[in-house]
Amino acid sequence: MQIDLNADMGEGYGAFRTGEDESLLDWVSSVNVACGFHGGDPLTIRRTVRLALGKGIAVGAHPGFPDLLGFGRREWVVTPEEVYAWVVYQVGAVAALVRAEGGRLCHVKPHGALYNMAARDPVLAEAVATAVRAVDPALVLYGLAGSHLLAAGAAAGLRTASEVFADRTYQADGSLTPRHHPQALVHDPHTAAARVLQMVREGRVTALSGEAVRLRAETVCVHGDSPGAVAFVQQLRAVLERSGVRVQSPA
Amino acid sequence: MQIDLNADMGEGYGAFRTGEDESLLDWVSSVNVACGFHGGDPLTIRRTVRLALGKGIAVGAHPGFPDLLGFGRREWVVTPEEVYAWVVYQVGAVAALVRAEGGRLCHVKPHGALYNMAARDPVLAEAVATAVRAVDPALVLYGLAGSHLLAAGAAAGLRTASEVFADRTYQADGSLTPRHHPQALVHDPHTAAARVLQMVREGRVTALSGEAVRLRAETVCVHGDSPGAVAFVQQLRAVLERSGVRVQSPA
Amino acid sequence: MQIDLNADMGEGYGAFRTGEDESLLDWVSSVNVACGFHGGDPLTIRRTVRLALGKGIAVGAHPGFPDLLGFGRREWVVTPEEVYAWVVYQVGAVAALVRAEGGRLCHVKPHGALYNMAARDPVLAEAVATAVRAVDPALVLYGLAGSHLLAAGAAAGLRTASEVFADRTYQADGSLTPRHHPQALVHDPHTAAARVLQMVREGRVTALSGEAVRLRAETVCVHGDSPGAVAFVQQLRAVLERSGVRVQSPA
Amino acid sequence: MQIDLNADMGEGYGAFRTGEDESLLDWVSSVNVACGFHGGDPLTIRRTVRLALGKGIAVGAHPGFPDLLGFGRREWVVTPEEVYAWVVYQVGAVAALVRAEGGRLCHVKPHGALYNMAARDPVLAEAVATAVRAVDPALVLYGLAGSHLLAAGAAAGLRTASEVFADRTYQADGSLTPRHHPQALVHDPHTAAARVLQMVREGRVTALSGEAVRLRAETVCVHGDSPGAVAFVQQLRAVLERSGVRVQSPA
Repeated sequence: MQIDLNADMGEGYGAFRTGEDESLLDWVSSVNVACGFHGGDPLTIRRTVRLALGKGIAVGAHPGFPDLLGFGRREWVVTPEEVYAWVVYQVGAVAALVRAEGGRLCHVKPHGALYNMAARDPVLAEAVATAVRAVDPALVLYGLAGSHLLAAGAAAGLRTASEVFADRTYQADGSLTPRHHPQALVHDPHTAAARVLQMVREGRVTALSGEAVRLRAETVCVHGDSPGAVAFVQQLRAVLERSGVRVQSPA
Repeated sequence: MQIDLNADMGEGYGAFRTGEDESLLDWVSSVNVACGFHGGDPLTIRRTVRLALGKGIAVGAHPGFPDLLGFGRREWVVTPEEVYAWVVYQVGAVAALVRAEGGRLCHVKPHGALYNMAARDPVLAEAVATAVRAVDPALVLYGLAGSHLLAAGAAAGLRTASEVFADRTYQADGSLTPRHHPQALVHDPHTAAARVLQMVREGRVTALSGEAVRLRAETVCVHGDSPGAVAFVQQLRAVLERSGVRVQSPA
Repeated sequence: MQIDLNADMGEGYGAFRTGEDESLLDWVSSVNVACGFHGGDPLTIRRTVRLALGKGIAVGAHPGFPDLLGFGRREWVVTPEEVYAWVVYQVGAVAALVRAEGGRLCHVKPHGALYNMAARDPVLAEAVATAVRAVDPALVLYGLAGSHLLAAGAAAGLRTASEVFADRTYQADGSLTPRHHPQALVHDPHTAAARVLQMVREGRVTALSGEAVRLRAETVCVHGDSPGAVAFVQQLRAVLERSGVRVQSPA
Repeated sequence: MQIDLNADMGEGYGAFRTGEDESLLDWVSSVNVACGFHGGDPLTIRRTVRLALGKGIAVGAHPGFPDLLGFGRREWVVTPEEVYAWVVYQVGAVAALVRAEGGRLCHVKPHGALYNMAARDPVLAEAVATAVRAVDPALVLYGLAGSHLLAAGAAAGLRTASEVFADRTYQADGSLTPRHHPQALVHDPHTAAARVLQMVREGRVTALSGEAVRLRAETVCVHGDSPGAVAFVQQLRAVLERSGVRVQSPA
């Protein structure tokens, strides 16, 4: 029994900061490093890669749309050719910075709107997956559990990691409860850990409606940009380990 | 006897174009592909890489300062740490796009203000050279003949290519005659070819003052962004080849 | 009988150029100057404003989405608050550059995806119209004939100009024939002029299907970025004037 | 006896934040709002303008170099034509957003490297001053005490405000002690207030060397981006007011 805890990191841009908390690096097993398009300049990327490698954490690339103002969260009209070229460019850039620090890039997790659009659109999913393979076929592709992105990764011959969310509730169809819903979020780390344990052990999660939904959990997305976020992750990890689940990256 | 003819390429940005003429690809032996900072978006880079690989031309990276508005020509205050991270990032990104097209990145030539500043500043030169080596020690580093950049490349264990200009005159100290000087430019391709032949065969060039200046010529910078530029390169190449100089990339 | 001929201008960005041809300034009665978001840096804007004012042409602002890579043509998810603030910012910036050159900004025409989205979405249309009014209620708002943007402009108390296209054919519902359709474009300037004359005189245009479509024509969009484009406009203007239609801006 | 307390504000960019603390708005008499080039997107600018107007604080524009990555702090080679166009553009944009909120732009204070370069270079100083006048001759130009910028503002017929720093020490020549000097900073608000009082009342400050330096103090730059910064300003203001100095903007 094992699970990966992953967090986004390195999303600052020059003097600009996001709310990320680097002390999260003490509690996760993998980090997704911004690649310069939605955040993350080369100096910030390099510093983040160094920190992560120094702690023995698996380093991945976190490519996004070229939309600094929208932080890569804005959905827009793209062609698969654009997505392919954008992903190869970004993953190649971060992979070089990781190698320059003596490490090796382990995985790729698309960011924001690219993550969401590639989850539901098989054409964009294929563009992402073939781009990742073009850079390095040994990379693990992280994607939303049950999404087109994971299917495209498998079809491209990549190893994949099915991502779940510890702090979000699910709908009966396996999708995340939209953020505006009053019960969208799980605030208590023990409840969150119990849910993750259920996913890891049983391959399913209880939806808000009470139904059991099948869900493969190989990596859990955690955050460090809100008050109490680090403590939440720390407790989540402690509960998982006490329950006999080893926290480690898939790579 | 051999010489490389290199040209900058792929500097467009989305719908924006520079004056470059892709028919130049028929006459050069290597191209320096923009890397996204001063010009060159991933789609444009990929298309340019494809064109060049299809013609059997050596593909290099042409990293610049992150200054799209100034086209990377603006000199500014930078730290060696910034330059190092910016070069690793850009070269890594373009190298990945070249690999994705089935090729291999052959060389790196800094662009604009980065080229000029790394030519005269040994600290920035070292930052560029070590960044290139960090991405791939087999890369050839192109730099201004006699510059600190070539010295730094050699010190870093890289192969280097000493660059000269066919369409520019030289001063007695080996520097280029500034562009505002009435005799800065060489317009006639036969005169230009004669000068390049002298550089290749004798390792020297006649300065404006009449003095002979020692100059190592391994690659010649040519341009495709002015009227008559392609014809100039075509004739330059023809004269060189008729004179028994083989035109090929150093890689 | 009068009509305005308007063209986009000043869309270059630093060393980057679009295909625009400034000789078009000799044949149009108003220009829409890019505002820095999809193209147009302050120096380019200022130079374009100077040229236009020197020829006595009405100068307008051409605000777009902050998407330099996509040249403002990419549709994306936006809030009305964003659109409002983006339009006030851009129009205010260009208005200041016009005043600094001794002129006065006359009109606003949204660019690219903003133009299209504000044409069909009444909420975005209202955001644009109220933003224009907030900068200067004397500005004329240009928008697609029959669109929500014109309705929003009128509702905001602005003068509006209903825009038609001389080089495009129309559908029976008044919309433009999509560009991929084989008969989408009108290439012959005499045919184009006849169509514009019909719109100006009769307030209608013959759709591809043969039906007459009601269409108010107060300004005609012309282009300078393709071979023959300037000659097209020159001939269009000549035919209009010979037919007794005065070419002048609505402001 | 009166003095202005000014602070930079609105420098965030989309989801990115700087360390600024908006509670500083309760203690200053004027704010310098970022204009989109070094920081500050239109939505952030608008929100900041609203907050400031709601508290009755004088709103100014804070134009900088178009260098988001370097936060406008990087010195670089610029022409006076660029600086002129960049300042007109930015000040015009923010002035429009202020008018749209029912207010009026009161002053302009250049940011970062533009502030420093315009302080010591009379040609750039003139470019800034004439740009500000071109937008609105009623604007007050803030500049470093004793600098070329203030002289250029006066020569352009603008009202000026001579800026001093409460948390920095001065050299015998009137310049600020460089930041790397161990005694560069004044941490104690009472010491800072005593220094400001000396400047306001006597028109001089005691340099690190012990010499009295003549210095005109019309506005004091304060910061909100470090721990304790707001408390520092609050105490500074309290001491000034208890000492009979009225805190208000020059406009």
